[in-house]
Amino acid sequence: MQLYHRQQIESVATFNPHSLSVIENAFSALGRGEVTMPPVLSMAIHEHNGEVDVKTAHIKGAERFAIKVSPGFFDNPSIGLPSLNGLMVVFSASTGLVEAVLFDEGYLTDLRTALAGALSAKYCARDDANIVTVLGAGTQARLQVSALKLVREIDTVHVWARDNAQARHYKVEVEAELGVRVIPHQDVAQACQQADIIVTTTPAKQPILHWQDIPKGAHVTAMGSDSAEKRELDPHILHNADWVLVDRRAQSEVLGELKGLALSRCVEELGKTVASGRPTARSDEAITVCDLTGTGVQDTAIANATVAKLLATYGGSPHT
Amino acid sequence: MQLYHRQQIESVATFNPHSLSVIENAFSALGRGEVTMPPVLSMAIHEHNGEVDVKTAHIKGAERFAIKVSPGFFDNPSIGLPSLNGLMVVFSASTGLVEAVLFDEGYLTDLRTALAGALSAKYCARDDANIVTVLGAGTQARLQVSALKLVREIDTVHVWARDNAQARHYKVEVEAELGVRVIPHQDVAQACQQADIIVTTTPAKQPILHWQDIPKGAHVTAMGSDSAEKRELDPHILHNADWVLVDRRAQSEVLGELKGLALSRCVEELGKTVASGRPTARSDEAITVCDLTGTGVQDTAIANATVAKLLATYGGSPHT
Repeated sequence: MQLYHRQQIESVATFNPHSLSVIENAFSALGRGEVTMPPVLSMAIHEHNGEVDVKTAHIKGAERFAIKVSPGFFDNPSIGLPSLNGLMVVFSASTGLVEAVLFDEGYLTDLRTALAGALSAKYCARDDANIVTVLGAGTQARLQVSALKLVREIDTVHVWARDNAQARHYKVEVEAELGVRVIPHQDVAQACQQADIIVTTTPAKQPILHWQDIPKGAHVTAMGSDSAEKRELDPHILHNADWVLVDRRAQSEVLGELKGLALSRCVEELGKTVASGRPTARSDEAITVCDLTGTGVQDTAIANATVAKLLATYGGSPHT
Repeated sequence: MQLYHRQQIESVATFNPHSLSVIENAFSALGRGEVTMPPVLSMAIHEHNGEVDVKTAHIKGAERFAIKVSPGFFDNPSIGLPSLNGLMVVFSASTGLVEAVLFDEGYLTDLRTALAGALSAKYCARDDANIVTVLGAGTQARLQVSALKLVREIDTVHVWARDNAQARHYKVEVEAELGVRVIPHQDVAQACQQADIIVTTTPAKQPILHWQDIPKGAHVTAMGSDSAEKRELDPHILHNADWVLVDRRAQSEVLGELKGLALSRCVEELGKTVASGRPTARSDEAITVCDLTGTGVQDTAIANATVAKLLATYGGSPHT
């Protein structure tokens, strides 16, 4: 059994065409029905304003599967600790023996979440999309843009955050890091006016993006909502959009933007589209939406690829 | 974050009055409604005849909670590996930070499972119970007797196993290890004739113990069934017994002996009885039954106690 720390994991797992293809293949397997993925296990720890989620999946033929544990303790920042945390335990899929503990503190979750956002744009956004609007200015607000650069020629980012100071800080950081122009806004509608791609990355519990904010031809990726209480999108968006995709319908109906809507319209799972190998048949005027709640198959896929790279790079560790 | 291996864990976690009280307090908290315990997460890996279960719980006020991962890969023995395996990841209940990985290979599960069997006897068996019948001759068949010795003056063990050679081997091992007389049998009915306590410890998929096999005044602990396909008890036992207890009703109805029975009779949860502080109100002639499927609260409780002892014994490890 190998134990790897965040620094080692960060050194081998990055945004690149290979990691994108790892997540793309995972969604494709999901779309082909080659994945076993039980519902998320969730437990609240009310006395400490905390919760813990456990996700897993097995991809037929994969060498390993991961059990990912993600605690979120929302009072942590007041004592100088991050809210989100966690690790992945990686098992041999043929013997069930523990192969590795990836003590990544949530890094691989950040990575695979942003890569799913890139995939959503790859299959749904216009080919010439180069202006992104990001709602929220946290970790995913940065990472989603990094990942989008793998699939579209992004040159401009509009950003809105509830706290405008954060949006201005984001500008400084992202312009330096990603070499794109960043324009902060105090208003969501204004931030979205020119967007080809809108990414919502907030923990909002009330809709922050409305139907009338979305320009024709834009693609929306909503990745903030991953629990029963959260919601970023005005339901009109789900009712009116030309295409609605989700990572996993059953999960989106409980944790994501589909909850409580009883949509009768066609909703496609992203994996089906990826498995077809063809982008969404969209016109240049169409508005498309993809709701991502985060799936165990992404965790198992990124863990498989990361362990292979860690073994190749670091070999056996003294913790064997 | 500390990583502890099986040998270290075995050195601090054993059968003793303290570990019994740890599990007793866990059931008591469950009975008082002070435990959050989500349903078990299960995933089958059919291509390798494997499955993985994840259990967790939080006990109000406890310092830590555990996520336990138990893989079972049933073709492993053919390549010289054990079927069962796994580890516990222990988190701070106030911050969600990982405190320890207990790489116990299933040892703590064995321990807490046997201790629950002892509790079931403590609260349900006659005070003068000293003859035990064990069905099955594997690990739990040994450990259940070890644990029972904490609560009753056990002097004689009758054992039956599908493979009689295993029952004879069990006799040699258990007589040497536990200082009790062991009598192997080729027939379940005969093995049970004199029993005060009967413990079923097999992976049977069809009932192995029948109502007419159980002598008056006996207590039955059924701990083998923990999945949708398994069953050890003839349903007549659940219909006819004077008292029926389970560790968790919702779980026993899916994974344990209650499944498919639609029992309308009174079924008590063991935690309620433990919380009351009083043994089951049984006559000397009564037949009592307790079905144990194994619960996350046992895992969290034994993990809390074990980490405290490991820290006191070994302090910080080089894996911090």
